Amino acid sequence: MSNFNLDNVTSHIEQDFDNSVNRLIEWLKIPSVSTDPAYNDDVRKAADWMMNELDGMGFEIKLIETDGHPVVFAERKASNKDAKTILYYGHYDVQPGDPFELWDTAPFEPTIVDSMHGKKLVARGAEDDKGQVMTFIEAFRAFIATHDDLPCNIKIMLEGEEETGSPSLDKFLKQNKDILAADVCVVCDTAMWDINTPAITYSLRGLIDAEISIKGPSRDLHSGMYGGAVINPLHALSNIVAQLHDENGKIQIPHFYEGAPELEEAERAALSALNFDDAEFLGEIGLKNTAGEDGYSTIERIYARPSCDVNGMWGGYIGEGHKTVIASEAHVKLSCRLVGDQDPAKILPNIEKFFADRLPADFTMTFKNHGAAYALKLPIDSPYLKAAQKGLEVEYQREAKMIGMGGSIPAVGAIKNMLGLESVMVGFGLSDDNIHSPNEKYELTCLRRGIRSHAAILLELAKV
Amino acid sequence: MSNFNLDNVTSHIEQDFDNSVNRLIEWLKIPSVSTDPAYNDDVRKAADWMMNELDGMGFEIKLIETDGHPVVFAERKASNKDAKTILYYGHYDVQPGDPFELWDTAPFEPTIVDSMHGKKLVARGAEDDKGQVMTFIEAFRAFIATHDDLPCNIKIMLEGEEETGSPSLDKFLKQNKDILAADVCVVCDTAMWDINTPAITYSLRGLIDAEISIKGPSRDLHSGMYGGAVINPLHALSNIVAQLHDENGKIQIPHFYEGAPELEEAERAALSALNFDDAEFLGEIGLKNTAGEDGYSTIERIYARPSCDVNGMWGGYIGEGHKTVIASEAHVKLSCRLVGDQDPAKILPNIEKFFADRLPADFTMTFKNHGAAYALKLPIDSPYLKAAQKGLEVEYQREAKMIGMGGSIPAVGAIKNMLGLESVMVGFGLSDDNIHSPNEKYELTCLRRGIRSHAAILLELAKV
Repeated sequence: MSNFNLDNVTSHIEQDFDNSVNRLIEWLKIPSVSTDPAYNDDVRKAADWMMNELDGMGFEIKLIETDGHPVVFAERKASNKDAKTILYYGHYDVQPGDPFELWDTAPFEPTIVDSMHGKKLVARGAEDDKGQVMTFIEAFRAFIATHDDLPCNIKIMLEGEEETGSPSLDKFLKQNKDILAADVCVVCDTAMWDINTPAITYSLRGLIDAEISIKGPSRDLHSGMYGGAVINPLHALSNIVAQLHDENGKIQIPHFYEGAPELEEAERAALSALNFDDAEFLGEIGLKNTAGEDGYSTIERIYARPSCDVNGMWGGYIGEGHKTVIASEAHVKLSCRLVGDQDPAKILPNIEKFFADRLPADFTMTFKNHGAAYALKLPIDSPYLKAAQKGLEVEYQREAKMIGMGGSIPAVGAIKNMLGLESVMVGFGLSDDNIHSPNEKYELTCLRRGIRSHAAILLELAKV
Repeated sequence: MSNFNLDNVTSHIEQDFDNSVNRLIEWLKIPSVSTDPAYNDDVRKAADWMMNELDGMGFEIKLIETDGHPVVFAERKASNKDAKTILYYGHYDVQPGDPFELWDTAPFEPTIVDSMHGKKLVARGAEDDKGQVMTFIEAFRAFIATHDDLPCNIKIMLEGEEETGSPSLDKFLKQNKDILAADVCVVCDTAMWDINTPAITYSLRGLIDAEISIKGPSRDLHSGMYGGAVINPLHALSNIVAQLHDENGKIQIPHFYEGAPELEEAERAALSALNFDDAEFLGEIGLKNTAGEDGYSTIERIYARPSCDVNGMWGGYIGEGHKTVIASEAHVKLSCRLVGDQDPAKILPNIEKFFADRLPADFTMTFKNHGAAYALKLPIDSPYLKAAQKGLEVEYQREAKMIGMGGSIPAVGAIKNMLGLESVMVGFGLSDDNIHSPNEKYELTCLRRGIRSHAAILLELAKV
């Protein structure tokens, strides 16, 4: 190990940083929206772009087809025959850009603007997950530029379907188990505690999503000719959505909470010790009042309790002006975040039943789901996790916080189940990065220190 | 009067009928959607098209500007100095074509297809109201072609904003009172009882519409990071919509029913005597069960009771696939049909209050309305109405039914209030014409017999 010099690597990172930003900008210009088939060509273009980069860095590259979008796989061995093998996970697909009109600059025209932390890069995917992926890619580049070598054998797996719930991932992992073999997986898709405090995420909520369409009259009706004499599908759907939670914020889907553990005193104390600032968390999104399930604090609600949210709802005339129509159909997309041992496979049919049981007699409904993931808690005493903590401390000169995350990364569960691999989740996002929202951004300081951190972490992982 | 020969007129109508259809097709090709500013040029083009037709028939024409879309006005005097003056009302604007994907043929590419009654013309506006307007225009054309004269002085007023609630009409009528002076107004925008039974509409429901947007968080949120800890605007809006009616179908907006008279026994008996067929009415739109306000029959609900319907509702991600977002805003368009003396000006602020009272503490809302009309009942003993009945009987060889209409025609109230003119509402639509819906159509037999009826009615009106 003595032949690797972190100072040389970080010096190179600093000198090359403008180029790193430009490379990220190039990648962000490709609208790799995985959920919308209209962007299929761009998704592939984003994969090819990264393949080309990795090829140039001396990685063996392979674009592996799946039932959906392909996986970018790359490998470069260390000269040290005894080196550990680290699998890095990220995703090259992004959320849709809409609502486009709420962006200050076009989502796929990356723009650098001033921020309270210096400069930030604004674009769809700037953080989630192209910017985050670049933190480890650019760290590898710096090692290769300064040492023509890497401290560990590196495997890279970049998925193209994370934003649609990773539907092809299980099968992909099963079929490619051999080439993916590693000592540990490093996942870069999570957030810091704040701009100066790094974090390692050890718990994730699970996710299920569903899309329900209900249909009453066989066609749209004139509200004058029929109003008052038929059940309006938008009223019927609103009635059902209004019943999803009771007045205490409890989700009413039958058996929903089965497997969701009550918080233990120790966990409550640990969450409380994080000194999460409700006023700041809510103030940043223009709100004052806490809300949610009675009996829990805000941080408990988002780290340790399940949730159920409508993500989209529509029906009838939604254009300019007014059209006095009674819609034939009404639609809702919803998702649930899961904790503990809540089982997506059991909850999905109960959501369907919840809607079906409340459907007016003459109505029909269709139900589909896009993806599902179990909640996950990672062991916090693993030597790899401790190595990552050390690497972060080298860069930030303070201890990394161990945090939960309200979101879901289906890959982490799949990697554990299919490859038997533990993951270390370390990322450099901030809570105000607007991921999945208009004006998504990544602070340039997060990108720069993320690259530096991954360099330090890689050296620590090599020592395990 | 002896110099007018109805047989000559109807013979001409028959010979010229293919041309009548082609003229209507030409007019229907112009997408005069009044509610959407993107179609503003087409609205004007549709007005110009009709101006040109009327000019060719020897009418004095005048396009009169309003605060919104212009009014087509035309006048042709009878040679008989003592002739009555009849004002004909219709509208040249149409509803939007969407949802376009549910049309079998494009809404603005009129197509003639087989129907259970022979042939029908399918297009947006085929019935409402371009086809109906053509019934009287083509009747005038036949008189002029065969007699170079008309039995009455004819004034024509075609509005371009009926589908948006006629916002400019009151002011227009007030400013143009002199040129609009007449003995009676004939309105052609209503339906027949069935394909063989003509009808005169003597009651209309009133209309108010409103658009409400509520806003919670200042931006769209990631449902993983925030789900369970904030109030979801789509849930909040669904909660409010779900409260619009109680379990008995009663509308819960405060003071809503003030001015809505209970049905008298005589009216109930008259409605019952129409032998309205619930199973047929509902079966035609794929439904089996009656619904609505408890204690009323279906025909009472649509002719004589008020209603409140969401016409459109939307928020969050409504594209392909899934996006796990909590929307910042949620939107609803709704309208109410009014009866008796219900006052739109009093109900609108109560709708606003109904939503505002139920808004979560951190939320803001905006409220706007597009138009309003009082409900209306016309005297059924007027000599003009009896003349129209006689004319219809000449054509159909059976008595016209006197019916109510669930829809609203703001012009009828405005013409009464501003011009002091009584209206006779006679039209040739059918309940399955899909007005305001995909695949709107007009039966060619309704067009043909409508033209013939207007010829007969005009002769009867001349005798009053």
